[in-house]
Amino acid sequence: MDRRSFLTKVTSASALAAAAVAVSYPGKSTHAQVKFRWRLAHSFGPTAPVYAEALKNMADNFRVMTKGRLDIKIFAGGELVPAFGVFDAVKQGALEMFFSASYYWAGKVPATQFTCSVPFGMTPQQVSAWFYGGDGLKLWQEFYAKHGLMVFQAGNTGVQMGGWFRKEIKSIDDFKGLKMRIPGLGGKVVAAVGGVVVLLPGPEIFPALERGVIDATEWVGPLYDWHLGLHQAATYYYSPGYHEPSTANELTFNLKKWKSLPKELQEMLVHGAYFLNVTGLAEFDAKNLEYLEKIKAYKGGKIQFRTFPNDVLKELYKAAEKINEEVADSDPDARKVYDAYKKFRDGVRTWHNINEVAYQNALKTVGAI
Amino acid sequence: MDRRSFLTKVTSASALAAAAVAVSYPGKSTHAQVKFRWRLAHSFGPTAPVYAEALKNMADNFRVMTKGRLDIKIFAGGELVPAFGVFDAVKQGALEMFFSASYYWAGKVPATQFTCSVPFGMTPQQVSAWFYGGDGLKLWQEFYAKHGLMVFQAGNTGVQMGGWFRKEIKSIDDFKGLKMRIPGLGGKVVAAVGGVVVLLPGPEIFPALERGVIDATEWVGPLYDWHLGLHQAATYYYSPGYHEPSTANELTFNLKKWKSLPKELQEMLVHGAYFLNVTGLAEFDAKNLEYLEKIKAYKGGKIQFRTFPNDVLKELYKAAEKINEEVADSDPDARKVYDAYKKFRDGVRTWHNINEVAYQNALKTVGAI
Repeated sequence: MDRRSFLTKVTSASALAAAAVAVSYPGKSTHAQVKFRWRLAHSFGPTAPVYAEALKNMADNFRVMTKGRLDIKIFAGGELVPAFGVFDAVKQGALEMFFSASYYWAGKVPATQFTCSVPFGMTPQQVSAWFYGGDGLKLWQEFYAKHGLMVFQAGNTGVQMGGWFRKEIKSIDDFKGLKMRIPGLGGKVVAAVGGVVVLLPGPEIFPALERGVIDATEWVGPLYDWHLGLHQAATYYYSPGYHEPSTANELTFNLKKWKSLPKELQEMLVHGAYFLNVTGLAEFDAKNLEYLEKIKAYKGGKIQFRTFPNDVLKELYKAAEKINEEVADSDPDARKVYDAYKKFRDGVRTWHNINEVAYQNALKTVGAI
Repeated sequence: MDRRSFLTKVTSASALAAAAVAVSYPGKSTHAQVKFRWRLAHSFGPTAPVYAEALKNMADNFRVMTKGRLDIKIFAGGELVPAFGVFDAVKQGALEMFFSASYYWAGKVPATQFTCSVPFGMTPQQVSAWFYGGDGLKLWQEFYAKHGLMVFQAGNTGVQMGGWFRKEIKSIDDFKGLKMRIPGLGGKVVAAVGGVVVLLPGPEIFPALERGVIDATEWVGPLYDWHLGLHQAATYYYSPGYHEPSTANELTFNLKKWKSLPKELQEMLVHGAYFLNVTGLAEFDAKNLEYLEKIKAYKGGKIQFRTFPNDVLKELYKAAEKINEEVADSDPDARKVYDAYKKFRDGVRTWHNINEVAYQNALKTVGAI
C-alpha cells in the first residue's frame, strides 16, 4: 500500500492525529536524543515552481543542522489533507506545521487578509519591514495564538501581474459583466466595479479561459502563468497586480507542538522561515524574468502587454479602499491589524518615495529603464 | 588588563593568530563535542545602529541553536583589528570571520565593487535575486576563494540618500570644485563631473561639514545620518542615492576554517546570513522612516529636501557608466562579475518595469503616494 493510497483513506483530523502518533514521534535517535519526525502540509502542487523545491531544501537543511534529529516530511496539497485543509489540520493538532498563504483563511480569520496581500497595499520589501522591523509579525502571532497557532512570514511572490484578459480593457465599463476568476479582496474589488467573480481552482482555469467560460483570470506572474498555459488562452496580459502587490507566504505551527520543541529546534525553524524569505522572493524574481521572455517570444510576439488605464486604476483604488475598511470593520482583530498596517504603510511610503521610488524615477530620467 | 588594552597591543596578524590559539578553540563542551569559539570582527562602531544589535542577535541565535557549541564573539571596528583590517585578518587566518561591506576592498579586489553597490545599478530586491536566484553569489564565492575566503550576502542598507549639501545643486556646474566626502565608485563619478573628492572617516565628517572644510557629504540614510548629526551641519538633503542604490553587507569566513567546521555548523552560519538579510533591510527601512520624520521636524522644518535635477542625473549617469566599465576592464574577475551583473540587471529591470515600477506608477496615478 503506497503512502498515497493509505493517506487518501485518512480524511478526518482525528484519524490523522491517531495515525501520526502511531508512525512518528517521539522516537530515539542514535544520539539518545528525542527525535522529532514532523509533517508539513502545504497548499500547492507536488511540483509547484519555487515552493516545492524551497520546502524540500528547507527540510534538508534541518536534517543537516540537526543531524537528523528534526526530520520534516513535506506533503503537497491533497496528499495528506486538502490544499485548503492545512489550517484546520494544524490548528487541531493533526499535523505539526503548514506552509501556505494566509488569505486562504479569510472566511475563518478575517485579519489574515492583511497579513497576506492587500489591494493597493505595501510591496514585498515594505511588508518585510513591517513584519521584521515593525509590529506586523507580533500582531500576526497574537491573533494566530487565539487559534492555537504560531506563525512566521516565509517568502513572497513579489508584485503579481494584473491578469490575462481575452479583450482589451479601455475603460471601467469594460469590467461590467466581465466574468473574471479572481479570489479574495481582489475579487471583491472587481465585483464592486461591475465584474462577475468566478472562483475556480488552478487546474480548471485554463480550460475555462480557453473556452470563453470566463473572460479573464489573474494567477501569479510569468513563471506560474506560463505553467498554467494562460498565454495560450488569452491575448492581453495586464500589469500591475494592484490586487496582490505582495503576497506573503506563511510557515505556521501548532502552538502546543511548537512549545513542546526544545529551544534550539524552535530557533532553527525560525531560521527556516528566513531561508524561505530570502530564497523565495529571489527565485520568483529570477524565474519570472526568464518566463517573461518566453511569454514575449510566444508565437513571435502574439501576447499584448498592457497596463490598466489611469481611469480604471482610480476606480479600482476607490473600490479597494472601501472594501479594505469594510473587512477591517468586520472583526476586531482585522481592525487592529489593518490600522497598524496602514500606519506602517504610510510611514514606509513616505520614506520609499524619497529613496526607492525617487531612484526608479532617476533611472527613467537617465534612460536606464 | 582589560580586553581592549590587551588587544591594542596585538597588531600583527601573526600575533593575533597566536593569541587566538591560546585562548580559544578547540575545547570540550559538556556534551563531549568539540566546541567552536570563533571571533567575528566588523567594520562598524560598537553601537552602530542596526549592525551592532543584529550581529549580537545572530551570535545569540547560534548559541541557542548549538547549545553553546558555536560561540561567536563580536568585535567592533578597532577592537581587535582596525575597521578596514578585517579582510586581511580573516584572509590570513588570524580571525575566523568578518562582517563588512565588500567595496571597502576595492583596492585589493576590484570585483568587490560589483558585489556591494553599483552607481545606477540594481536595487536591494534585485541584488538579492541575483545572489540567491541567479549566479551572483556563486561568482562572488569563486573570486573570494582565490583569497582563501568564503562569503554570503548578509543584509542591505536599502537605497541610500544622495547626501547633504550646504548649497543647492541647480546644475552640473555646481559640482565643479565642490568638495565632497564620497568614497568608492560614487567618488569617482563626482570627480568625473568636476568635484573634489575628500575621504574622511565617519567621526571626522560632521566637524568638516560644519566648518565648511567640505561642501557636501554622503553617508547612509536618515537613521545613520541623524546619529552623525549631519542635519546640524547642512541644509539640503538630496535623494536619491544614485551612487549607492543597494549597499550589500557580507558575512565572510576564512575558507580553511570554514572547511574545518562540521556541516551542521556551516549550515547554521549560512542561515545566520539569511537572518541578517531579512532583518537587516527590514530594520533599516523601519528605522529610516522614523528618523526621516525626526529630520523633517528638526528646527520646525529647517531641512530642505531635494532631488537631483534631471540634467544633473544624466551627467552623473554618463560618468558612472564609463567608470563602471573602466573598473571592469581593470581586472579579469571584475569584468566577469560585472558582465554577469549587467546581464541579470537588464533582465530583472525588464521584469520589474512591469511589476514593481508599474505598481509604484499606479500608486502615484491613484494618489496613494
